[in-house]
Amino acid sequence: MKLAVIGLGLIGGSLARALRVGRSAGLVVTGFDTDPKQVRLAVDLGVVDQAPGSAQAAVQGADIIVIAVPVLHTADALKSILPAIGTTAVVTDVGSTKQSVLEDVAKVCGGKLPPWFVAGHPIAGTEKSGVANAFAELFHGHRVILTPHAGQSADARDRVRKMWEAAGARVVEMDAARHDQIFAATSHLPHVLAYGFVDMLTRLPEQDQIFRNAGGGFRDFTRIASSSPQMWHDIVRANRATVSELLARQISDLSEMLAMIRSERWDELKARFERARAARERHLSQIE
Amino acid sequence: MKLAVIGLGLIGGSLARALRVGRSAGLVVTGFDTDPKQVRLAVDLGVVDQAPGSAQAAVQGADIIVIAVPVLHTADALKSILPAIGTTAVVTDVGSTKQSVLEDVAKVCGGKLPPWFVAGHPIAGTEKSGVANAFAELFHGHRVILTPHAGQSADARDRVRKMWEAAGARVVEMDAARHDQIFAATSHLPHVLAYGFVDMLTRLPEQDQIFRNAGGGFRDFTRIASSSPQMWHDIVRANRATVSELLARQISDLSEMLAMIRSERWDELKARFERARAARERHLSQIE
Repeated sequence: MKLAVIGLGLIGGSLARALRVGRSAGLVVTGFDTDPKQVRLAVDLGVVDQAPGSAQAAVQGADIIVIAVPVLHTADALKSILPAIGTTAVVTDVGSTKQSVLEDVAKVCGGKLPPWFVAGHPIAGTEKSGVANAFAELFHGHRVILTPHAGQSADARDRVRKMWEAAGARVVEMDAARHDQIFAATSHLPHVLAYGFVDMLTRLPEQDQIFRNAGGGFRDFTRIASSSPQMWHDIVRANRATVSELLARQISDLSEMLAMIRSERWDELKARFERARAARERHLSQIE
Repeated sequence: MKLAVIGLGLIGGSLARALRVGRSAGLVVTGFDTDPKQVRLAVDLGVVDQAPGSAQAAVQGADIIVIAVPVLHTADALKSILPAIGTTAVVTDVGSTKQSVLEDVAKVCGGKLPPWFVAGHPIAGTEKSGVANAFAELFHGHRVILTPHAGQSADARDRVRKMWEAAGARVVEMDAARHDQIFAATSHLPHVLAYGFVDMLTRLPEQDQIFRNAGGGFRDFTRIASSSPQMWHDIVRANRATVSELLARQISDLSEMLAMIRSERWDELKARFERARAARERHLSQIE
Protein backbone atom coordinates (compact mmCIF):
# COMPACT_ATOMS: atom_id res chain seq x y z
CA MET A 1 0.00 0.00 0.00
CA LYS A 2 1.36 3.40 -0.94
CA LEU A 3 -0.19 6.55 0.55
CA ALA A 4 0.68 9.99 -0.81
CA VAL A 5 -0.06 13.07 1.29
CA ILE A 6 -0.11 16.39 -0.57
CA GLY A 7 0.05 19.09 2.11
CA LEU A 8 2.07 18.20 5.19
CA GLY A 9 0.22 20.11 7.86
CA LEU A 10 -1.63 19.14 11.03
CA ILE A 11 -4.25 17.03 9.24
CA GLY A 12 -2.10 15.43 6.55
CA GLY A 13 0.68 14.78 9.02
CA SER A 14 -1.63 13.31 11.64
CA LEU A 15 -3.26 10.99 9.09
CA ALA A 16 0.17 9.76 7.99
CA ARG A 17 1.18 9.18 11.60
CA ALA A 18 -2.10 7.41 12.41
CA LEU A 19 -1.76 4.99 9.51
CA ARG A 20 1.89 4.32 10.24
CA VAL A 21 1.09 3.41 13.85
CA GLY A 22 -1.10 0.50 12.84
CA ARG A 23 0.83 -0.05 9.61
CA SER A 24 0.24 -3.15 7.66
CA ALA A 25 3.52 -4.59 6.40
CA GLY A 26 4.64 -2.66 3.37
CA LEU A 27 2.80 0.63 3.88
CA VAL A 28 4.85 3.40 2.34
CA VAL A 29 3.98 7.06 2.91
CA THR A 30 5.23 9.71 0.54
CA GLY A 31 4.59 13.40 1.02
CA PHE A 32 4.86 16.79 -0.57
CA ASP A 33 4.34 20.35 0.58
CA THR A 34 4.95 23.67 -1.19
CA ASP A 35 6.76 24.75 1.99
CA PRO A 36 10.20 23.07 2.05
CA LYS A 37 10.37 23.57 5.83
CA GLN A 38 7.32 21.36 6.37
CA VAL A 39 8.78 18.74 4.05
CA ARG A 40 12.07 18.64 5.95
CA LEU A 41 10.22 18.44 9.26
CA ALA A 42 7.99 15.63 7.97
CA VAL A 43 11.05 13.61 6.97
CA ASP A 44 13.01 14.41 10.13
CA LEU A 45 10.06 13.55 12.38
CA GLY A 46 9.41 10.31 10.52
CA VAL A 47 5.94 11.36 9.42
CA VAL A 48 6.68 10.28 5.84
CA ASP A 49 9.04 7.67 4.41
CA GLN A 50 9.85 9.63 1.30
CA ALA A 51 9.54 13.20 0.09
CA PRO A 52 10.52 13.09 -3.58
CA GLY A 53 10.56 16.87 -4.08
CA SER A 54 7.54 17.38 -6.32
CA ALA A 55 3.84 16.67 -6.00
CA GLN A 56 3.88 14.58 -9.16
CA ALA A 57 6.76 12.45 -7.96
CA ALA A 58 5.08 12.00 -4.57
CA VAL A 59 1.87 10.53 -6.03
CA GLN A 60 3.68 8.25 -8.51
CA GLY A 61 2.38 4.73 -7.94
CA ALA A 62 0.23 5.77 -4.95
CA ASP A 63 -2.91 3.79 -4.14
CA ILE A 64 -4.50 6.57 -2.09
CA ILE A 65 -3.70 10.25 -2.55
CA VAL A 66 -4.82 12.62 0.19
CA ILE A 67 -4.96 16.33 -0.63
CA ALA A 68 -4.62 18.13 2.70
CA VAL A 69 -4.15 21.78 1.77
CA PRO A 70 -6.16 24.94 2.59
CA VAL A 71 -9.43 24.46 0.63
CA LEU A 72 -8.81 27.13 -1.99
CA HIS A 73 -5.55 25.41 -2.93
CA THR A 74 -7.31 22.13 -3.73
CA ALA A 75 -7.62 22.90 -7.44
CA ASP A 76 -3.94 23.80 -7.80
CA ALA A 77 -2.85 20.75 -5.85
CA LEU A 78 -5.00 18.48 -8.01
CA LYS A 79 -3.79 20.15 -11.21
CA SER A 80 -0.19 19.59 -10.19
CA ILE A 81 -0.66 15.84 -9.70
CA LEU A 82 -3.26 15.09 -12.38
CA PRO A 83 -0.89 13.63 -15.00
CA ALA A 84 0.69 11.33 -12.42
CA ILE A 85 -2.44 9.85 -10.83
CA GLY A 86 -2.42 6.11 -11.50
CA THR A 87 -5.39 4.40 -13.15
CA THR A 88 -6.28 2.51 -9.98
CA ALA A 89 -5.57 5.36 -7.57
CA VAL A 90 -8.16 7.03 -5.35
CA VAL A 91 -7.92 10.76 -4.56
CA THR A 92 -9.56 12.28 -1.49
CA ASP A 93 -9.38 15.58 0.38
CA VAL A 94 -9.88 16.86 3.94
CA GLY A 95 -11.32 20.33 3.30
CA SER A 96 -13.81 21.97 5.65
CA THR A 97 -16.07 23.04 2.77
CA LYS A 98 -17.34 20.47 0.33
CA GLN A 99 -19.33 22.23 -2.41
CA SER A 100 -16.37 24.41 -3.37
CA VAL A 101 -14.08 21.38 -3.45
CA LEU A 102 -16.46 19.44 -5.69
CA GLU A 103 -16.78 22.44 -8.02
CA ASP A 104 -13.01 22.96 -8.14
CA VAL A 105 -12.32 19.28 -8.78
CA ALA A 106 -14.88 19.18 -11.59
CA LYS A 107 -13.30 22.28 -13.16
CA VAL A 108 -9.82 20.73 -13.08
CA CYS A 109 -11.18 17.48 -14.54
CA GLY A 110 -12.83 18.98 -17.60
CA GLY A 111 -16.19 19.87 -16.12
CA LYS A 112 -17.10 16.49 -14.67
CA LEU A 113 -16.46 14.93 -11.27
CA PRO A 114 -14.29 11.85 -11.76
CA PRO A 115 -15.32 8.49 -10.23
CA TRP A 116 -12.00 8.22 -8.38
CA PHE A 117 -12.45 11.39 -6.30
CA VAL A 118 -13.91 11.13 -2.79
CA ALA A 119 -14.67 14.39 -0.98
CA GLY A 120 -14.05 14.08 2.76
CA HIS A 121 -13.89 16.16 5.92
CA PRO A 122 -12.47 14.85 9.21
CA ILE A 123 -14.16 16.59 12.16
CA ALA A 124 -10.96 16.83 14.12
CA GLY A 125 -8.20 19.33 14.54
CA THR A 126 -6.60 21.63 17.03
CA GLU A 127 -5.80 25.33 16.86
CA LYS A 128 -2.20 24.41 16.07
CA SER A 129 -0.92 24.19 12.50
CA GLY A 130 2.00 22.50 10.81
CA VAL A 131 3.36 18.98 10.67
CA ALA A 132 5.28 19.49 13.92
CA ASN A 133 1.94 19.44 15.76
CA ALA A 134 0.66 16.31 14.01
CA PHE A 135 -0.14 13.30 16.18
CA ALA A 136 -1.43 9.82 15.48
CA GLU A 137 -4.44 10.00 17.80
CA LEU A 138 -6.00 13.14 16.32
CA PHE A 139 -8.85 11.25 14.63
CA HIS A 140 -9.55 8.68 17.36
CA GLY A 141 -13.27 8.50 17.96
CA HIS A 142 -13.96 11.46 15.66
CA ARG A 143 -16.18 11.53 12.64
CA VAL A 144 -15.12 11.86 9.04
CA ILE A 145 -17.83 13.07 6.70
CA LEU A 146 -17.84 11.94 3.09
CA THR A 147 -20.02 13.83 0.62
CA PRO A 148 -20.50 11.42 -2.31
CA HIS A 149 -21.30 12.64 -5.80
CA ALA A 150 -23.17 11.01 -8.68
CA GLY A 151 -20.86 8.76 -10.62
CA GLN A 152 -18.46 8.20 -7.72
CA SER A 153 -16.94 4.74 -7.65
CA ALA A 154 -18.27 2.70 -4.73
CA ASP A 155 -14.90 1.02 -4.52
CA ALA A 156 -13.10 4.38 -4.24
CA ARG A 157 -15.45 5.46 -1.45
CA ASP A 158 -14.95 2.16 0.31
CA ARG A 159 -11.16 2.47 0.23
CA VAL A 160 -11.28 5.98 1.67
CA ARG A 161 -13.67 4.80 4.37
CA LYS A 162 -11.33 1.96 5.33
CA MET A 163 -8.38 4.37 5.45
CA TRP A 164 -10.15 6.63 7.94
CA GLU A 165 -11.34 3.68 10.00
CA ALA A 166 -7.74 2.50 10.17
CA ALA A 167 -6.89 5.96 11.53
CA GLY A 168 -9.46 5.48 14.31
CA ALA A 169 -12.32 7.55 12.87
CA ARG A 170 -15.99 6.80 12.17
CA VAL A 171 -17.16 7.58 8.66
CA VAL A 172 -20.58 9.03 7.86
CA GLU A 173 -22.04 10.33 4.62
CA MET A 174 -23.84 13.57 3.99
CA ASP A 175 -24.97 15.74 1.10
CA ALA A 176 -22.33 18.38 0.28
CA ALA A 177 -24.73 21.34 0.40
CA ARG A 178 -26.09 20.20 3.75
CA HIS A 179 -22.55 19.71 5.03
CA ASP A 180 -21.62 23.29 4.16
CA GLN A 181 -24.77 24.63 5.81
CA ILE A 182 -24.18 22.72 9.04
CA PHE A 183 -20.47 23.44 9.34
CA ALA A 184 -20.98 27.11 8.62
CA ALA A 185 -22.95 27.11 11.88
CA THR A 186 -20.88 24.78 14.07
CA SER A 187 -17.44 25.75 12.88
CA HIS A 188 -17.01 28.51 10.28
CA LEU A 189 -19.06 31.19 12.06
CA PRO A 190 -17.47 30.49 15.50
CA HIS A 191 -14.04 31.00 13.96
CA VAL A 192 -15.09 34.35 12.50
CA LEU A 193 -16.57 35.37 15.86
CA ALA A 194 -13.51 34.30 17.83
CA TYR A 195 -11.11 36.10 15.48
CA GLY A 196 -13.39 39.15 15.53
CA PHE A 197 -13.52 39.18 19.32
CA VAL A 198 -9.75 38.91 19.86
CA ASP A 199 -9.09 41.42 17.07
CA MET A 200 -11.41 43.88 18.78
CA LEU A 201 -9.43 43.56 22.01
CA THR A 202 -6.19 44.38 20.20
CA ARG A 203 -7.61 47.80 19.40
CA LEU A 204 -8.64 48.69 22.94
CA PRO A 205 -6.31 51.01 24.85
CA GLU A 206 -6.07 48.57 27.79
CA GLN A 207 -5.02 45.70 25.52
CA ASP A 208 -2.12 44.49 27.68
CA GLN A 209 -4.06 44.67 30.93
CA ILE A 210 -6.91 42.81 29.30
CA PHE A 211 -4.84 39.85 28.13
CA ARG A 212 -2.97 39.77 31.44
CA ASN A 213 -6.25 39.31 33.26
CA ALA A 214 -7.70 36.64 31.02
CA GLY A 215 -8.85 33.45 32.70
CA GLY A 216 -9.94 29.97 31.70
CA GLY A 217 -13.22 31.06 30.11
CA PHE A 218 -11.34 33.48 27.87
CA ARG A 219 -8.74 30.86 26.98
CA ASP A 220 -11.34 28.37 25.79
CA PHE A 221 -13.59 30.92 24.08
CA THR A 222 -10.66 32.28 22.06
CA ARG A 223 -8.77 29.03 21.43
CA ILE A 224 -9.90 28.79 17.82
CA ALA A 225 -8.59 32.33 17.19
CA SER A 226 -5.12 30.74 17.27
CA SER A 227 -6.00 28.70 14.18
CA SER A 228 -4.30 29.24 10.83
CA PRO A 229 -5.53 32.52 9.25
CA GLN A 230 -4.74 31.18 5.77
CA MET A 231 -6.80 28.06 6.30
CA TRP A 232 -9.78 29.94 7.74
CA HIS A 233 -9.61 32.68 5.16
CA ASP A 234 -9.94 29.95 2.55
CA ILE A 235 -12.86 28.29 4.33
CA VAL A 236 -14.83 31.51 4.82
CA ARG A 237 -14.19 32.46 1.22
CA ALA A 238 -15.19 29.03 -0.06
CA ASN A 239 -18.42 29.07 1.95
CA ARG A 240 -19.05 32.82 1.83
CA ALA A 241 -22.77 32.77 0.99
CA THR A 242 -23.73 30.66 4.00
CA VAL A 243 -21.20 32.16 6.39
CA SER A 244 -22.25 35.72 5.58
CA GLU A 245 -25.92 34.82 5.97
CA LEU A 246 -25.27 33.37 9.42
CA LEU A 247 -22.99 36.24 10.40
CA ALA A 248 -25.72 38.73 9.44
CA ARG A 249 -28.17 36.78 11.57
CA GLN A 250 -25.70 36.76 14.48
CA ILE A 251 -25.16 40.51 14.21
CA SER A 252 -28.90 41.04 14.23
CA ASP A 253 -29.28 38.80 17.30
CA LEU A 254 -26.48 40.61 19.14
CA SER A 255 -28.09 43.94 18.24
CA GLU A 256 -31.31 42.71 19.82
CA MET A 257 -29.40 41.73 22.94
CA LEU A 258 -27.69 45.13 23.01
CA ALA A 259 -31.11 46.80 22.80
CA MET A 260 -32.29 44.66 25.72
CA ILE A 261 -29.34 45.81 27.83
CA ARG A 262 -29.75 49.45 26.89
CA SER A 263 -33.48 49.46 27.57
CA GLU A 264 -33.02 47.25 30.65
CA ARG A 265 -35.25 44.43 29.42
CA TRP A 266 -33.43 42.05 31.72
CA ASP A 267 -35.95 39.22 31.69
CA GLU A 268 -35.66 38.97 27.92
CA LEU A 269 -31.87 38.90 28.10
CA LYS A 270 -31.94 36.24 30.79
CA ALA A 271 -34.38 34.19 28.73
CA ARG A 272 -31.83 34.12 25.90
CA PHE A 273 -29.08 33.03 28.30
CA GLU A 274 -31.38 30.30 29.61
CA ARG A 275 -32.37 29.08 26.16
CA ALA A 276 -28.72 28.92 25.11
CA ARG A 277 -27.64 27.07 28.21
CA ALA A 278 -30.49 24.58 28.00
CA ALA A 279 -29.71 23.81 24.34
CA ARG A 280 -26.02 23.32 25.00
CA GLU A 281 -26.65 21.07 28.00
CA ARG A 282 -29.22 19.06 26.05
CA HIS A 283 -26.78 18.41 23.21
CA LEU A 284 -23.55 18.21 25.19
CA SER A 285 -23.36 14.43 25.21
CA GLN A 286 -23.33 14.47 21.39
CA ILE A 287 -20.36 16.82 21.07
CA GLU A 288 -17.21 14.88 20.42
CA MET B 1 -11.06 30.49 63.22
CA LYS B 2 -14.66 30.55 62.11
CA LEU B 3 -15.52 31.06 58.45
CA ALA B 4 -19.07 31.78 57.33
CA VAL B 5 -20.04 31.30 53.69
CA ILE B 6 -23.23 32.99 52.54
CA GLY B 7 -24.15 31.42 49.22
CA LEU B 8 -23.22 27.76 48.83
CA GLY B 9 -22.45 27.58 45.13
CA LEU B 10 -19.40 26.68 43.09
CA ILE B 11 -17.26 29.52 44.43
CA GLY B 12 -18.38 29.56 48.06
CA GLY B 13 -18.31 25.78 48.23
CA SER B 14 -14.87 25.54 46.63
CA LEU B 15 -13.44 28.13 49.01
CA ALA B 16 -14.82 26.21 51.99
CA ARG B 17 -13.37 22.98 50.65
CA ALA B 18 -9.98 24.60 49.92
CA LEU B 19 -9.66 25.99 53.44
CA ARG B 20 -10.80 22.75 55.03
CA VAL B 21 -8.14 20.79 53.13
CA GLY B 22 -5.30 22.71 54.76
CA ARG B 23 -7.32 23.38 57.86
CA SER B 24 -5.60 24.75 60.85
CA ALA B 25 -6.80 23.04 64.01
CA GLY B 26 -10.11 24.46 65.04
CA LEU B 27 -11.34 25.89 61.73
CA VAL B 28 -15.11 25.79 61.67
CA VAL B 29 -17.06 26.50 58.50
CA THR B 30 -20.68 27.52 58.67
CA GLY B 31 -22.83 28.15 55.66
CA PHE B 32 -26.16 29.42 54.45
CA ASP B 33 -28.00 29.49 51.14
CA THR B 34 -31.50 30.65 50.24
CA ASP B 35 -31.87 27.34 48.38
CA PRO B 36 -32.41 24.57 50.98
CA LYS B 37 -31.24 21.98 48.44
CA GLN B 38 -27.78 23.55 48.27
CA VAL B 39 -27.64 23.71 52.07
CA ARG B 40 -28.49 20.03 52.43
CA LEU B 41 -25.90 19.13 49.77
CA ALA B 42 -23.23 21.26 51.45
CA VAL B 43 -23.80 19.45 54.73
CA ASP B 44 -24.04 15.99 53.16
CA LEU B 45 -20.88 16.52 51.10
CA GLY B 46 -18.98 17.82 54.14
CA VAL B 47 -18.41 21.24 52.56
CA VAL B 48 -19.58 22.97 55.75
CA ASP B 49 -19.53 21.87 59.39
CA GLN B 50 -22.72 23.63 60.30
CA ALA B 51 -25.70 25.10 58.50
CA PRO B 52 -27.73 26.83 61.18
CA GLY B 53 -30.73 27.62 58.96
CA SER B 54 -30.48 31.40 58.68
CA ALA B 55 -27.87 33.79 57.33
CA GLN B 56 -27.75 35.63 60.67
CA ALA B 57 -27.18 32.44 62.62
CA ALA B 58 -24.51 31.33 60.16
CA VAL B 59 -22.38 34.46 60.63
CA GLN B 60 -22.73 34.53 64.42
CA GLY B 61 -19.22 34.63 65.89
CA ALA B 62 -17.56 34.36 62.45
CA ASP B 63 -14.10 35.86 61.92
CA ILE B 64 -14.42 35.98 58.15
CA ILE B 65 -17.72 36.19 56.31
CA VAL B 66 -17.68 35.45 52.58
CA ILE B 67 -20.67 36.58 50.52
CA ALA B 68 -20.72 34.33 47.46
CA VAL B 69 -24.03 35.07 45.77
CA PRO B 70 -24.93 36.40 42.29
CA VAL B 71 -23.71 40.03 42.37
CA LEU B 72 -27.12 41.68 42.40
CA HIS B 73 -27.99 39.71 45.54
CA THR B 74 -25.03 41.10 47.47
CA ALA B 75 -27.02 43.94 49.05
CA ASP B 76 -29.78 41.60 50.25
CA ALA B 77 -27.27 39.12 51.62
CA LEU B 78 -25.44 41.85 53.50
CA LYS B 79 -28.68 43.32 54.83
CA SER B 80 -29.73 39.93 56.14
CA ILE B 81 -26.53 39.47 58.16
CA LEU B 82 -25.78 43.07 59.15
CA PRO B 83 -27.09 42.94 62.74
CA ALA B 84 -25.11 39.74 63.42
CA ILE B 85 -21.69 40.77 62.10
CA GLY B 86 -19.26 40.74 65.03
CA THR B 87 -17.18 43.80 65.86
CA THR B 88 -13.93 42.08 64.84
CA ALA B 89 -15.34 40.30 61.77
CA VAL B 90 -14.26 40.92 58.21
CA VAL B 91 -16.75 40.68 55.33
CA THR B 92 -15.67 40.00 51.76
CA ASP B 93 -17.35 39.03 48.50
CA VAL B 94 -16.48 37.18 45.28
CA GLY B 95 -18.53 39.12 42.73
CA SER B 96 -17.40 39.55 39.11
CA THR B 97 -18.25 43.27 39.14
CA LYS B 98 -16.76 45.50 41.77
CA GLN B 99 -18.19 49.01 41.38
CA SER B 100 -21.75 47.77 41.76
CA VAL B 101 -20.79 45.78 44.85
CA LEU B 102 -19.09 48.77 46.48
CA GLU B 103 -22.13 50.94 45.72
CA ASP B 104 -24.53 48.35 47.08
CA VAL B 105 -22.49 47.79 50.23
CA ALA B 106 -22.29 51.55 50.86
CA LYS B 107 -26.07 51.84 50.44
CA VAL B 108 -26.74 49.04 52.93
CA CYS B 109 -24.27 50.61 55.40
CA GLY B 110 -25.84 54.07 55.52
CA GLY B 111 -24.07 55.64 52.55
CA LYS B 112 -20.49 54.87 53.56
CA LEU B 113 -18.21 51.95 52.85
CA PRO B 114 -17.33 50.29 56.14
CA PRO B 115 -13.65 49.60 57.04
CA TRP B 116 -14.41 45.90 57.55
CA PHE B 117 -15.59 45.23 53.98
CA VAL B 118 -13.10 43.92 51.42
CA ALA B 119 -14.29 43.68 47.81
CA GLY B 120 -12.77 40.67 46.04
CA HIS B 121 -13.00 38.68 42.83
CA PRO B 122 -11.36 35.27 42.33
CA ILE B 123 -10.45 34.75 38.66
CA ALA B 124 -11.47 31.13 38.72
CA GLY B 125 -14.57 29.16 37.98
CA THR B 126 -16.02 26.61 35.65
CA GLU B 127 -19.21 26.61 33.62
CA LYS B 128 -20.76 24.39 36.27
CA SER B 129 -22.82 25.81 39.10
CA GLY B 130 -23.86 24.62 42.52
CA VAL B 131 -22.09 23.26 45.58
CA ALA B 132 -22.05 19.74 44.10
CA ASN B 133 -19.44 20.93 41.60
CA ALA B 134 -17.24 22.64 44.19
CA PHE B 135 -13.68 21.38 44.56
CA ALA B 136 -10.74 22.38 46.76
CA GLU B 137 -8.28 23.03 43.91
CA LEU B 138 -10.41 25.57 42.03
CA PHE B 139 -8.27 28.52 43.09
CA HIS B 140 -4.83 26.89 42.85
CA GLY B 141 -2.46 29.18 40.98
CA HIS B 142 -5.27 31.59 40.10
CA ARG B 143 -5.48 35.25 40.89
CA VAL B 144 -7.84 36.94 43.29
CA ILE B 145 -8.32 40.63 42.70
CA LEU B 146 -9.07 42.92 45.63
CA THR B 147 -10.38 46.42 44.89
CA PRO B 148 -9.63 48.43 48.06
CA HIS B 149 -11.64 51.52 48.99
CA ALA B 150 -10.68 54.60 50.97
CA GLY B 151 -11.09 53.94 54.67
CA GLN B 152 -10.70 50.18 54.35
CA SER B 153 -8.94 48.56 57.30
CA ALA B 154 -5.48 47.34 56.34
CA ASP B 155 -5.95 44.51 58.82
CA ALA B 156 -9.21 43.44 57.18
CA ARG B 157 -7.56 43.41 53.74
CA ASP B 158 -4.66 41.44 55.12
CA ARG B 159 -6.90 38.77 56.62
CA VAL B 160 -8.78 38.33 53.33
CA ARG B 161 -5.49 38.13 51.47
CA LYS B 162 -4.24 35.40 53.82
CA MET B 163 -7.49 33.47 53.41
CA TRP B 164 -7.12 33.37 49.62
CA GLU B 165 -3.45 32.48 49.83
CA ALA B 166 -4.40 29.59 52.11
CA ALA B 167 -6.78 28.48 49.34
CA GLY B 168 -3.86 28.45 46.88
CA ALA B 169 -4.49 31.77 45.11
CA ARG B 170 -2.32 34.83 44.45
CA VAL B 171 -3.80 38.15 45.51
CA VAL B 172 -3.42 41.36 43.51
CA GLU B 173 -5.01 44.77 43.98
CA MET B 174 -6.71 46.92 41.39
CA ASP B 175 -8.95 49.95 41.17
CA ALA B 176 -12.63 48.92 41.04
CA ALA B 177 -13.46 50.98 37.93
CA ARG B 178 -10.47 49.58 36.08
CA HIS B 179 -11.42 46.06 37.19
CA ASP B 180 -14.90 46.43 35.72
CA GLN B 181 -13.50 47.77 32.46
CA ILE B 182 -11.03 44.93 32.05
CA PHE B 183 -13.37 42.11 33.01
CA ALA B 184 -16.09 43.44 30.75
CA ALA B 185 -13.63 42.69 27.94
CA THR B 186 -12.08 39.40 29.10
CA SER B 187 -15.10 37.82 30.67
CA HIS B 188 -18.47 39.60 30.55
CA LEU B 189 -18.60 40.24 26.79
CA PRO B 190 -17.43 36.70 25.88
CA HIS B 191 -20.27 35.28 27.95
CA VAL B 192 -22.81 37.45 26.13
CA LEU B 193 -21.31 36.42 22.78
CA ALA B 194 -21.27 32.72 23.65
CA TYR B 195 -24.88 32.78 24.89
CA GLY B 196 -25.86 34.80 21.82
CA PHE B 197 -24.19 32.35 19.47
CA VAL B 198 -25.75 29.21 20.96
CA ASP B 199 -29.12 30.92 21.23
CA MET B 200 -28.97 31.78 17.54
CA LEU B 201 -28.38 28.12 16.69
CA THR B 202 -31.46 27.07 18.63
CA ARG B 203 -33.55 29.09 16.20
CA LEU B 204 -32.13 27.57 13.03
CA PRO B 205 -34.23 24.89 11.32
CA GLU B 206 -31.27 22.43 11.31
CA GLN B 207 -30.71 22.81 15.06
CA ASP B 208 -30.45 19.10 15.83
CA GLN B 209 -28.12 18.35 12.93
CA ILE B 210 -25.97 21.31 13.92
CA PHE B 211 -25.44 20.19 17.49
CA ARG B 212 -24.93 16.60 16.38
CA ASN B 213 -22.06 17.73 14.17
CA ALA B 214 -20.31 19.95 16.67
CA GLY B 215 -16.62 19.25 17.31
CA GLY B 216 -13.95 20.30 19.76
CA GLY B 217 -13.73 23.90 18.57
CA PHE B 218 -17.45 24.31 19.11
CA ARG B 219 -17.30 22.67 22.52
CA ASP B 220 -14.62 25.06 23.80
CA PHE B 221 -16.05 28.16 22.13
CA THR B 222 -19.46 27.54 23.71
CA ARG B 223 -18.35 26.16 27.08
CA ILE B 224 -19.16 29.39 28.92
CA ALA B 225 -22.70 29.31 27.47
CA SER B 226 -23.33 26.52 30.01
CA SER B 227 -22.72 28.98 32.86
CA SER B 228 -25.46 30.05 35.26
CA PRO B 229 -27.89 32.43 33.45
CA GLN B 230 -28.85 34.00 36.80
CA MET B 231 -25.25 34.76 37.68
CA TRP B 232 -24.45 36.20 34.26
CA HIS B 233 -27.65 38.16 34.04
CA ASP B 234 -26.63 39.81 37.31
CA ILE B 235 -23.10 40.54 36.06
CA VAL B 236 -24.18 42.05 32.75
CA ARG B 237 -26.80 44.11 34.56
CA ALA B 238 -24.33 45.28 37.20
CA ASN B 239 -21.77 46.30 34.56
CA ARG B 240 -24.22 47.32 31.85
CA ALA B 241 -22.60 50.59 30.76
CA THR B 242 -19.25 49.01 29.95
CA VAL B 243 -20.64 45.74 28.60
CA SER B 244 -23.03 47.51 26.25
CA GLU B 245 -20.27 49.82 25.02
CA LEU B 246 -18.06 46.83 24.19
CA LEU B 247 -20.94 44.88 22.68
CA ALA B 248 -21.73 47.84 20.39
CA ARG B 249 -18.10 47.94 19.36
CA GLN B 250 -18.12 44.19 18.69
CA ILE B 251 -21.27 44.45 16.58
CA SER B 252 -19.66 47.24 14.59
CA ASP B 253 -16.49 45.17 14.06
CA LEU B 254 -18.50 42.13 12.97
CA SER B 255 -20.46 44.34 10.59
CA GLU B 256 -17.19 45.46 9.05
CA MET B 257 -16.11 41.84 8.66
CA LEU B 258 -19.47 40.99 7.09
CA ALA B 259 -18.99 43.84 4.60
CA MET B 260 -15.52 42.47 3.78
CA ILE B 261 -17.00 39.04 3.05
CA ARG B 262 -19.87 40.45 0.97
CA SER B 263 -17.59 42.70 -1.07
CA GLU B 264 -14.89 40.02 -1.25
CA ARG B 265 -12.17 42.12 0.40
CA TRP B 266 -10.39 38.95 1.44
CA ASP B 267 -7.01 40.45 2.27
CA GLU B 268 -8.63 42.72 4.82
CA LEU B 269 -10.49 39.83 6.40
CA LYS B 270 -7.35 37.73 6.55
CA ALA B 271 -5.44 40.64 8.10
CA ARG B 272 -7.98 40.66 10.95
CA PHE B 273 -7.60 36.91 11.43
CA GLU B 274 -3.81 37.36 11.47
CA ARG B 275 -3.89 40.24 13.94
CA ALA B 276 -6.15 38.26 16.26
CA ARG B 277 -4.03 35.15 16.11
CA ALA B 278 -0.80 37.07 16.67
CA ALA B 279 -2.23 38.85 19.72
CA ARG B 280 -3.54 35.65 21.26
CA GLU B 281 -0.26 33.81 20.69
CA ARG B 282 1.73 36.74 22.11
CA HIS B 283 -0.31 36.79 25.30
CA LEU B 284 -1.02 33.07 25.64
CA SER B 285 1.64 32.42 28.26
CA GLN B 286 -0.05 34.99 30.51
CA ILE B 287 -3.46 33.35 30.42
CA GLU B 288 -3.99 31.23 33.51
